[in-house]
Amino acid sequence: MLKNLKLIIEYDGTNYCGWQRQPNGRSIQQEIETALQAMTRQPLTLIGSGRTDAGVHALGQVANFTCDTTIEPQEFQKGLNSLLPADIVVRECTEAALSFHARYDVQSKTYRYRIRNNPLPAAIGRQYEWWIRYPLDVDAMSAAAGHLVGEKDFKAFEGSGSPRSHTVRHVSRAEVHQAPDDRIYFEVEARGFLRYMVRNIAGTLVAAGMGKIAPDHIISILNSHNRRLAAATAPAQGLCLVQVTY
Amino acid sequence: MLKNLKLIIEYDGTNYCGWQRQPNGRSIQQEIETALQAMTRQPLTLIGSGRTDAGVHALGQVANFTCDTTIEPQEFQKGLNSLLPADIVVRECTEAALSFHARYDVQSKTYRYRIRNNPLPAAIGRQYEWWIRYPLDVDAMSAAAGHLVGEKDFKAFEGSGSPRSHTVRHVSRAEVHQAPDDRIYFEVEARGFLRYMVRNIAGTLVAAGMGKIAPDHIISILNSHNRRLAAATAPAQGLCLVQVTY
Repeated sequence: MLKNLKLIIEYDGTNYCGWQRQPNGRSIQQEIETALQAMTRQPLTLIGSGRTDAGVHALGQVANFTCDTTIEPQEFQKGLNSLLPADIVVRECTEAALSFHARYDVQSKTYRYRIRNNPLPAAIGRQYEWWIRYPLDVDAMSAAAGHLVGEKDFKAFEGSGSPRSHTVRHVSRAEVHQAPDDRIYFEVEARGFLRYMVRNIAGTLVAAGMGKIAPDHIISILNSHNRRLAAATAPAQGLCLVQVTY
Repeated sequence: MLKNLKLIIEYDGTNYCGWQRQPNGRSIQQEIETALQAMTRQPLTLIGSGRTDAGVHALGQVANFTCDTTIEPQEFQKGLNSLLPADIVVRECTEAALSFHARYDVQSKTYRYRIRNNPLPAAIGRQYEWWIRYPLDVDAMSAAAGHLVGEKDFKAFEGSGSPRSHTVRHVSRAEVHQAPDDRIYFEVEARGFLRYMVRNIAGTLVAAGMGKIAPDHIISILNSHNRRLAAATAPAQGLCLVQVTY
Protein backbone atom coordinates (compact mmCIF):
# COMPACT_ATOMS: atom_id res chain seq x y z
CA MET A 1 0.00 0.00 0.00
CA LEU A 2 1.38 3.37 -0.98
CA LYS A 3 1.98 5.51 2.07
CA ASN A 4 3.23 9.02 2.55
CA LEU A 5 5.17 9.22 5.79
CA LYS A 6 6.00 12.40 7.64
CA LEU A 7 9.01 12.58 9.94
CA ILE A 8 9.88 15.15 12.59
CA ILE A 9 13.62 15.04 13.08
CA GLU A 10 16.06 16.38 15.66
CA TYR A 11 19.73 16.55 14.76
CA ASP A 12 23.03 17.84 15.98
CA GLY A 13 24.51 19.27 12.78
CA THR A 14 28.07 19.51 14.11
CA ASN A 15 29.42 16.61 12.12
CA TYR A 16 27.41 17.05 8.93
CA CYS A 17 27.76 18.99 5.70
CA GLY A 18 24.13 20.01 6.14
CA TRP A 19 20.72 18.57 5.40
CA GLN A 20 21.12 18.00 1.70
CA ARG A 21 22.83 15.05 0.07
CA GLN A 22 26.28 16.00 -1.24
CA PRO A 23 28.78 14.10 -3.32
CA ASN A 24 31.42 14.68 -0.62
CA GLY A 25 30.57 14.69 3.04
CA ARG A 26 27.91 13.20 5.28
CA SER A 27 24.48 14.77 5.12
CA ILE A 28 21.45 14.26 7.34
CA GLN A 29 19.28 13.45 4.32
CA GLN A 30 21.70 10.76 3.16
CA GLU A 31 21.90 9.15 6.60
CA ILE A 32 18.12 8.88 6.85
CA GLU A 33 17.68 7.72 3.25
CA THR A 34 20.27 5.00 3.80
CA ALA A 35 18.48 3.82 6.94
CA LEU A 36 15.10 3.89 5.16
CA GLN A 37 16.48 1.90 2.26
CA ALA A 38 17.87 -0.67 4.67
CA MET A 39 14.39 -1.02 6.19
CA THR A 40 12.35 -1.05 2.99
CA ARG A 41 14.82 -2.45 0.46
CA GLN A 42 13.60 0.24 -1.93
CA PRO A 43 15.30 3.30 -3.31
CA LEU A 44 13.67 6.28 -1.58
CA THR A 45 13.93 10.02 -1.71
CA LEU A 46 13.38 12.02 1.43
CA ILE A 47 11.90 15.49 0.90
CA GLY A 48 12.95 17.95 3.60
CA SER A 49 11.09 21.17 4.48
CA GLY A 50 14.24 22.90 3.27
CA ARG A 51 17.98 22.71 3.55
CA THR A 52 19.93 23.50 6.64
CA ASP A 53 23.56 24.54 6.17
CA ALA A 54 26.61 22.66 7.38
CA GLY A 55 26.81 22.80 11.17
CA VAL A 56 23.22 24.00 11.66
CA HIS A 57 21.06 22.02 14.09
CA ALA A 58 17.39 21.09 14.16
CA LEU A 59 14.91 20.25 16.87
CA GLY A 60 12.00 19.96 14.45
CA GLN A 61 13.05 19.48 10.84
CA VAL A 62 10.20 17.91 8.86
CA ALA A 63 10.55 15.54 5.92
CA ASN A 64 8.36 13.12 4.01
CA PHE A 65 8.76 10.12 1.74
CA THR A 66 6.37 7.92 -0.16
CA CYS A 67 6.76 4.19 -0.07
CA ASP A 68 4.79 1.07 -0.94
CA THR A 69 5.08 -0.74 2.38
CA THR A 70 3.29 -2.57 5.14
CA ILE A 71 5.61 -1.10 7.75
CA GLU A 72 3.69 0.99 10.27
CA PRO A 73 4.76 4.56 11.13
CA GLN A 74 5.78 3.56 14.68
CA GLU A 75 7.92 0.74 13.32
CA PHE A 76 9.59 3.19 10.96
CA GLN A 77 10.37 5.45 13.88
CA LYS A 78 11.80 2.64 16.02
CA GLY A 79 13.74 1.14 13.14
CA LEU A 80 15.21 4.47 12.07
CA ASN A 81 16.21 5.38 15.61
CA SER A 82 17.99 2.07 16.01
CA LEU A 83 19.79 2.43 12.66
CA LEU A 84 20.65 6.13 12.77
CA PRO A 85 23.70 7.56 14.53
CA ALA A 86 23.06 9.14 17.95
CA ASP A 87 23.16 12.68 16.55
CA ILE A 88 19.98 12.14 14.51
CA VAL A 89 16.71 11.25 16.26
CA VAL A 90 13.31 10.77 14.65
CA ARG A 91 10.94 12.42 17.11
CA GLU A 92 7.74 11.50 15.28
CA CYS A 93 6.64 9.42 12.33
CA THR A 94 3.05 9.67 11.15
CA GLU A 95 1.14 8.83 8.01
CA ALA A 96 0.18 11.91 6.01
CA ALA A 97 -2.18 12.49 3.10
CA LEU A 98 -0.64 11.29 -0.16
CA SER A 99 -0.68 14.91 -1.32
CA PHE A 100 1.47 16.15 1.60
CA HIS A 101 4.80 17.66 0.51
CA ALA A 102 7.25 18.71 3.22
CA ARG A 103 8.66 21.59 1.18
CA TYR A 104 5.72 22.94 -0.82
CA ASP A 105 3.21 22.82 2.02
CA VAL A 106 5.21 24.73 4.63
CA GLN A 107 3.10 27.32 6.43
CA SER A 108 5.88 28.66 8.64
CA LYS A 109 9.33 27.87 9.94
CA THR A 110 10.84 28.97 13.21
CA TYR A 111 14.56 29.34 13.64
CA ARG A 112 16.35 30.10 16.89
CA TYR A 113 19.82 31.59 17.09
CA ARG A 114 21.72 31.18 20.38
CA ILE A 115 24.41 33.55 21.57
CA ARG A 116 26.59 33.19 24.64
CA ASN A 117 27.35 36.66 25.89
CA ASN A 118 30.15 36.29 28.40
CA PRO A 119 33.79 37.34 28.59
CA LEU A 120 34.64 33.63 28.41
CA PRO A 121 33.45 30.93 26.01
CA ALA A 122 31.79 27.76 27.29
CA ALA A 123 33.43 24.36 26.94
CA ILE A 124 30.16 22.51 27.56
CA GLY A 125 27.59 23.28 24.87
CA ARG A 126 29.95 25.40 22.75
CA GLN A 127 28.73 23.44 19.69
CA TYR A 128 25.32 25.09 19.98
CA GLU A 129 26.09 28.79 20.30
CA TRP A 130 28.02 31.79 19.05
CA TRP A 131 30.31 33.23 21.68
CA ILE A 132 30.34 37.03 21.86
CA ARG A 133 32.66 38.35 24.54
CA TYR A 134 31.60 42.00 24.41
CA PRO A 135 28.47 42.92 26.36
CA LEU A 136 25.46 43.15 24.07
CA ASP A 137 22.61 45.60 24.47
CA VAL A 138 19.63 43.26 24.27
CA ASP A 139 17.15 46.15 24.04
CA ALA A 140 18.95 47.50 20.97
CA MET A 141 18.96 44.03 19.40
CA SER A 142 15.29 43.66 20.20
CA ALA A 143 14.43 47.04 18.67
CA ALA A 144 16.41 46.18 15.53
CA ALA A 145 14.66 42.80 15.25
CA GLY A 146 11.28 44.52 15.48
CA HIS A 147 11.96 46.29 12.17
CA LEU A 148 12.15 42.94 10.37
CA VAL A 149 8.54 41.97 10.99
CA GLY A 150 6.23 42.17 8.00
CA GLU A 151 6.46 41.60 4.28
CA LYS A 152 9.80 43.02 3.18
CA ASP A 153 12.48 42.60 0.59
CA PHE A 154 15.33 40.78 2.38
CA LYS A 155 17.75 41.01 -0.54
CA ALA A 156 20.34 42.72 1.72
CA PHE A 157 20.33 39.63 3.95
CA GLU A 158 20.63 37.07 1.19
CA GLY A 159 23.84 35.08 0.94
CA SER A 160 25.88 35.96 -2.10
CA GLY A 161 26.24 33.29 -4.77
CA SER A 162 22.72 31.94 -4.39
CA PRO A 163 20.35 34.66 -5.62
CA ARG A 164 16.61 34.07 -5.80
CA SER A 165 14.49 35.89 -8.35
CA HIS A 166 12.06 36.84 -5.64
CA THR A 167 13.54 38.16 -2.38
CA VAL A 168 10.42 39.38 -0.61
CA ARG A 169 9.63 37.32 2.48
CA HIS A 170 7.02 37.69 5.18
CA VAL A 171 8.51 37.57 8.68
CA SER A 172 5.70 37.04 11.17
CA ARG A 173 7.82 37.16 14.32
CA ALA A 174 11.35 38.33 15.17
CA GLU A 175 12.20 38.47 18.85
CA VAL A 176 15.33 38.75 20.95
CA HIS A 177 15.36 37.76 24.57
CA GLN A 178 17.90 37.37 27.33
CA ALA A 179 17.77 34.05 29.19
CA PRO A 180 18.32 33.97 32.98
CA ASP A 181 21.87 32.80 32.26
CA ASP A 182 24.26 34.53 29.86
CA ARG A 183 22.50 33.33 26.72
CA ILE A 184 20.66 35.57 24.28
CA TYR A 185 18.16 34.02 21.88
CA PHE A 186 16.91 35.40 18.59
CA GLU A 187 13.77 33.70 17.30
CA VAL A 188 12.39 34.36 13.86
CA GLU A 189 9.40 32.91 12.07
CA ALA A 190 8.48 33.12 8.40
CA ARG A 191 6.99 30.98 5.69
CA GLY A 192 10.28 30.99 3.85
CA PHE A 193 13.78 32.37 4.21
CA LEU A 194 16.52 33.28 1.78
CA ARG A 195 19.82 31.45 1.93
CA TYR A 196 21.88 32.58 4.97
CA MET A 197 19.12 35.07 5.81
CA VAL A 198 18.79 34.15 9.49
CA ARG A 199 22.54 34.09 10.04
CA ASN A 200 23.02 37.36 8.19
CA ILE A 201 20.30 38.95 10.32
CA ALA A 202 21.84 37.47 13.50
CA GLY A 203 25.19 39.02 12.57
CA THR A 204 23.51 42.38 12.03
CA LEU A 205 21.57 42.17 15.31
CA VAL A 206 24.86 41.56 17.10
CA ALA A 207 26.27 44.67 15.39
CA ALA A 208 23.29 46.59 16.82
CA GLY A 209 23.87 44.97 20.23
CA MET A 210 27.50 46.13 20.18
CA GLY A 211 26.48 49.68 19.25
CA LYS A 212 28.17 49.51 15.85
CA ILE A 213 24.90 50.44 14.21
CA ALA A 214 21.76 52.08 15.60
CA PRO A 215 18.75 49.73 15.84
CA ASP A 216 16.89 51.81 13.23
CA HIS A 217 19.75 51.47 10.80
CA ILE A 218 18.46 47.99 9.96
CA ILE A 219 15.67 49.74 8.03
CA SER A 220 18.25 51.42 5.77
CA ILE A 221 20.01 48.10 5.29
CA LEU A 222 16.72 46.47 4.25
CA ASN A 223 15.92 49.35 1.89
CA SER A 224 19.39 49.32 0.34
CA HIS A 225 18.97 45.73 -0.97
CA ASN A 226 22.74 45.67 -0.60
CA ARG A 227 24.29 42.66 1.13
CA ARG A 228 27.47 44.60 1.85
CA LEU A 229 25.66 46.97 4.21
CA ALA A 230 24.62 44.12 6.51
CA ALA A 231 27.10 42.61 8.96
CA ALA A 232 29.07 39.40 8.50
CA THR A 233 27.20 36.08 8.58
CA ALA A 234 26.87 34.65 12.08
CA PRO A 235 28.42 31.19 12.48
CA ALA A 236 26.34 28.11 11.68
CA GLN A 237 26.60 26.38 15.03
CA GLY A 238 24.38 28.91 16.83
CA LEU A 239 21.45 28.24 14.52
CA CYS A 240 18.67 25.72 15.08
CA LEU A 241 15.54 24.96 13.04
CA VAL A 242 13.03 24.70 15.87
CA GLN A 243 9.70 24.06 14.19
CA VAL A 244 7.98 23.75 10.84
CA THR A 245 4.22 24.11 10.65
CA TYR A 246 1.86 23.06 7.86
CA MET B 1 59.34 34.92 41.88
CA LEU B 2 57.82 31.63 43.00
CA LYS B 3 54.07 31.69 42.58
CA ASN B 4 51.35 29.20 43.32
CA LEU B 5 48.58 29.59 40.76
CA LYS B 6 45.06 28.28 41.16
CA LEU B 7 42.94 27.49 38.13
CA ILE B 8 39.19 26.91 37.86
CA ILE B 9 38.57 24.84 34.76
CA GLU B 10 35.54 23.92 32.69
CA TYR B 11 35.80 21.02 30.30
CA ASP B 12 33.77 18.83 28.02
CA GLY B 13 35.18 15.40 28.81
CA THR B 14 33.70 13.69 25.74
CA ASN B 15 36.97 13.38 23.86
CA TYR B 16 39.30 12.72 26.82
CA CYS B 17 40.48 9.69 28.73
CA GLY B 18 39.81 11.68 31.92
CA TRP B 19 41.58 14.28 34.00
CA GLN B 20 44.74 12.35 34.74
CA ARG B 21 47.71 12.03 32.45
CA GLN B 22 47.83 8.59 30.80
CA PRO B 23 50.42 6.91 28.62
CA ASN B 24 47.77 6.36 25.94
CA GLY B 25 45.04 8.86 25.26
CA ARG B 26 44.49 12.57 25.69
CA SER B 27 43.91 13.82 29.21
CA ILE B 28 42.80 17.22 30.45
CA GLN B 29 45.80 17.45 32.76
CA GLN B 30 48.19 16.77 29.90
CA GLU B 31 46.59 19.36 27.63
CA ILE B 32 46.88 22.07 30.28
CA GLU B 33 50.41 21.08 31.31
CA THR B 34 51.51 21.20 27.68
CA ALA B 35 50.02 24.68 27.28
CA LEU B 36 51.62 25.86 30.56
CA GLN B 37 55.00 24.53 29.50
CA ALA B 38 54.68 26.35 26.16
CA MET B 39 54.03 29.57 28.08
CA THR B 40 56.66 29.19 30.81
CA ARG B 41 59.29 27.03 29.07
CA GLN B 42 59.50 25.05 32.31
CA PRO B 43 58.45 21.52 33.15
CA LEU B 44 55.37 21.84 35.36
CA THR B 45 53.04 19.54 37.21
CA LEU B 46 49.42 20.46 37.56
CA ILE B 47 47.72 19.21 40.72
CA GLY B 48 44.00 18.61 40.29
CA SER B 49 41.44 18.48 43.09
CA GLY B 50 40.99 14.87 42.04
CA ARG B 51 40.59 12.74 38.98
CA THR B 52 37.55 12.68 36.79
CA ASP B 53 36.94 9.55 34.74
CA ALA B 54 36.96 9.27 30.96
CA GLY B 55 33.97 11.12 29.52
CA VAL B 56 33.11 12.98 32.74
CA HIS B 57 32.70 16.76 32.45
CA ALA B 58 33.57 19.67 34.74
CA LEU B 59 32.24 23.16 35.20
CA GLY B 60 34.51 23.91 38.15
CA GLN B 61 37.48 21.57 38.39
CA VAL B 62 40.25 23.20 40.46
CA ALA B 63 43.97 22.72 39.99
CA ASN B 64 47.18 24.44 41.06
CA PHE B 65 50.79 24.63 39.96
CA THR B 66 53.86 26.37 41.31
CA CYS B 67 56.14 28.23 38.99
CA ASP B 68 58.97 30.75 39.12
CA THR B 69 57.56 33.33 36.76
CA THR B 70 56.77 36.99 36.16
CA ILE B 71 53.64 36.07 34.22
CA GLU B 72 50.54 37.48 35.90
CA PRO B 73 47.50 35.27 36.65
CA GLN B 74 45.37 37.07 34.07
CA GLU B 75 48.01 36.55 31.43
CA PHE B 76 48.12 32.86 32.30
CA GLN B 77 44.37 32.66 31.85
CA LYS B 78 44.41 34.45 28.49
CA GLY B 79 47.40 32.50 27.24
CA LEU B 80 45.96 29.16 28.28
CA ASN B 81 42.60 29.90 26.72
CA SER B 82 44.25 30.80 23.44
CA LEU B 83 46.43 27.67 23.46
CA LEU B 84 43.91 25.13 24.75
CA PRO B 85 41.38 23.32 22.56
CA ALA B 86 37.82 24.68 22.65
CA ASP B 87 36.62 21.91 24.95
CA ILE B 88 38.79 23.15 27.84
CA VAL B 89 38.30 26.67 29.24
CA VAL B 90 40.13 28.25 32.18
CA ARG B 91 37.39 30.17 33.97
CA GLU B 92 39.65 31.75 36.59
CA CYS B 93 43.32 32.03 37.39
CA THR B 94 44.38 33.56 40.69
CA GLU B 95 47.47 33.56 42.85
CA ALA B 96 47.10 31.40 45.95
CA ALA B 97 49.18 31.04 49.11
CA LEU B 98 52.29 28.97 48.48
CA SER B 99 50.88 26.37 50.84
CA PHE B 100 47.68 25.88 48.81
CA HIS B 101 47.25 22.36 47.47
CA ALA B 102 44.30 21.63 45.17
CA ARG B 103 43.90 18.04 46.37
CA TYR B 104 44.81 18.10 50.05
CA ASP B 105 42.93 21.30 50.88
CA VAL B 106 39.53 20.36 49.43
CA GLN B 107 36.68 21.23 51.78
CA SER B 108 33.91 19.89 49.56
CA LYS B 109 33.13 18.81 46.03
CA THR B 110 29.79 18.98 44.29
CA TYR B 111 28.91 16.61 41.47
CA ARG B 112 25.80 16.79 39.34
CA TYR B 113 24.38 13.85 37.42
CA ARG B 114 21.99 14.62 34.56
CA ILE B 115 19.33 12.24 33.33
CA ARG B 116 17.04 12.69 30.36
CA ASN B 117 13.78 10.94 31.17
CA ASN B 118 11.89 10.69 27.93
CA PRO B 119 10.75 7.88 25.63
CA LEU B 120 13.20 9.30 23.07
CA PRO B 121 16.85 10.28 23.41
CA ALA B 122 18.05 13.78 22.52
CA ALA B 123 20.35 14.42 19.58
CA ILE B 124 21.34 17.86 20.86
CA GLY B 125 23.11 17.65 24.22
CA ARG B 126 23.18 13.84 24.30
CA GLN B 127 26.87 14.05 25.32
CA TYR B 128 25.88 15.48 28.70
CA GLU B 129 23.20 13.12 29.96
CA TRP B 130 22.08 9.58 30.55
CA TRP B 131 18.96 8.70 28.61
CA ILE B 132 16.39 6.66 30.55
CA ARG B 133 13.32 5.87 28.49
CA TYR B 134 11.16 4.46 31.29
CA PRO B 135 9.32 6.99 33.48
CA LEU B 136 11.19 7.57 36.73
CA ASP B 137 9.56 8.24 40.08
CA VAL B 138 11.45 11.34 41.19
CA ASP B 139 10.01 11.21 44.71
CA ALA B 140 11.33 7.66 45.15
CA MET B 141 14.75 8.74 43.87
CA SER B 142 14.69 11.71 46.20
CA ALA B 143 13.77 9.56 49.20
CA ALA B 144 16.55 7.11 48.37
CA ALA B 145 19.07 9.95 48.01
CA GLY B 146 18.09 11.28 51.43
CA HIS B 147 19.43 8.10 53.06
CA LEU B 148 22.91 8.88 51.78
CA VAL B 149 23.37 12.05 53.80
CA GLY B 150 25.71 11.81 56.75
CA GLU B 151 28.91 10.02 57.61
CA LYS B 152 28.57 6.50 56.19
CA ASP B 153 30.58 3.64 54.86
CA PHE B 154 30.14 3.78 51.09
CA LYS B 155 32.02 0.54 50.41
CA ALA B 156 28.99 -0.86 48.53
CA PHE B 157 29.26 2.06 46.08
CA GLU B 158 32.98 1.81 45.47
CA GLY B 159 34.18 0.73 42.04
CA SER B 160 35.76 -2.68 42.08
CA GLY B 161 39.47 -2.87 41.33
CA SER B 162 40.38 0.31 43.17
CA PRO B 163 39.75 -0.33 46.88
CA ARG B 164 40.58 2.31 49.48
CA SER B 165 41.55 1.27 52.99
CA HIS B 166 39.07 3.76 54.37
CA THR B 167 35.62 3.82 52.76
CA VAL B 168 33.75 6.08 55.16
CA ARG B 169 32.76 9.39 53.56
CA HIS B 170 30.68 12.30 54.76
CA VAL B 171 27.96 13.27 52.29
CA SER B 172 26.64 16.69 53.27
CA ARG B 173 23.97 16.94 50.57
CA ALA B 174 22.27 14.50 48.19
CA GLU B 175 19.30 15.86 46.28
CA VAL B 176 17.25 14.82 43.28
CA HIS B 177 15.11 17.28 41.39
CA GLN B 178 13.04 17.35 38.25
CA ALA B 179 13.76 20.27 35.92
CA PRO B 180 10.86 21.98 34.08
CA ASP B 181 11.86 19.98 31.00
CA ASP B 182 12.38 16.22 30.97
CA ARG B 183 15.71 16.31 32.82
CA ILE B 184 16.28 14.95 36.31
CA TYR B 185 19.32 16.11 38.25
CA PHE B 186 21.06 14.40 41.13
CA GLU B 187 23.40 16.66 43.10
CA VAL B 188 25.72 15.35 45.75
CA GLU B 189 28.26 17.10 47.90
CA ALA B 190 31.01 15.61 50.05
CA ARG B 191 34.57 16.31 51.01
CA GLY B 192 35.69 13.22 49.17
CA PHE B 193 34.27 10.41 47.11
CA LEU B 194 35.30 6.86 46.38
CA ARG B 195 36.08 5.83 42.84
CA TYR B 196 32.85 5.53 40.75
CA MET B 197 30.85 6.35 43.89
CA VAL B 198 28.66 9.04 42.31
CA ARG B 199 27.97 6.97 39.21
CA ASN B 200 27.24 3.86 41.28
CA ILE B 201 24.83 5.86 43.42
CA ALA B 202 23.22 7.39 40.31
CA GLY B 203 22.66 3.91 38.91
CA THR B 204 21.06 2.82 42.18
CA LEU B 205 18.84 5.92 42.37
CA VAL B 206 17.58 5.11 38.88
CA ALA B 207 16.79 1.57 40.08
CA ALA B 208 14.72 3.18 42.85
CA GLY B 209 13.10 5.53 40.32
CA MET B 210 12.11 2.53 38.20
CA GLY B 211 10.62 0.72 41.18
CA LYS B 212 13.18 -2.08 41.03
CA ILE B 213 14.12 -1.38 44.64
CA ALA B 214 12.28 0.45 47.40
CA PRO B 215 13.83 3.80 48.36
CA ASP B 216 14.67 2.47 51.84
CA HIS B 217 16.51 -0.48 50.34
CA ILE B 218 19.47 1.83 49.78
CA ILE B 219 20.06 1.61 53.55
CA SER B 220 20.48 -2.17 53.29
CA ILE B 221 22.83 -1.71 50.35
CA LEU B 222 24.95 0.72 52.38
CA ASN B 223 25.00 -1.62 55.37
CA SER B 224 25.90 -4.64 53.25
CA HIS B 225 29.22 -3.09 52.13
CA ASN B 226 28.66 -5.26 49.08
CA ARG B 227 29.14 -3.67 45.67
CA ARG B 228 27.08 -6.38 44.02
CA LEU B 229 23.93 -5.28 45.81
CA ALA B 230 24.07 -1.80 44.27
CA ALA B 231 22.96 -1.24 40.67
CA ALA B 232 25.19 -0.96 37.62
CA THR B 233 27.42 2.10 37.26
CA ALA B 234 25.69 4.98 35.48
CA PRO B 235 27.45 6.12 32.30
CA ALA B 236 30.20 8.72 32.53
CA GLN B 237 28.73 11.31 30.19
CA GLY B 238 25.93 12.28 32.61
CA LEU B 239 28.37 13.30 35.31
CA CYS B 240 29.79 16.77 35.89
CA LEU B 241 32.09 18.11 38.62
CA VAL B 242 30.30 21.36 39.36
CA GLN B 243 32.29 22.96 42.17
CA VAL B 244 35.18 22.44 44.55
CA THR B 245 35.41 24.53 47.69
CA TYR B 246 38.41 25.15 49.95
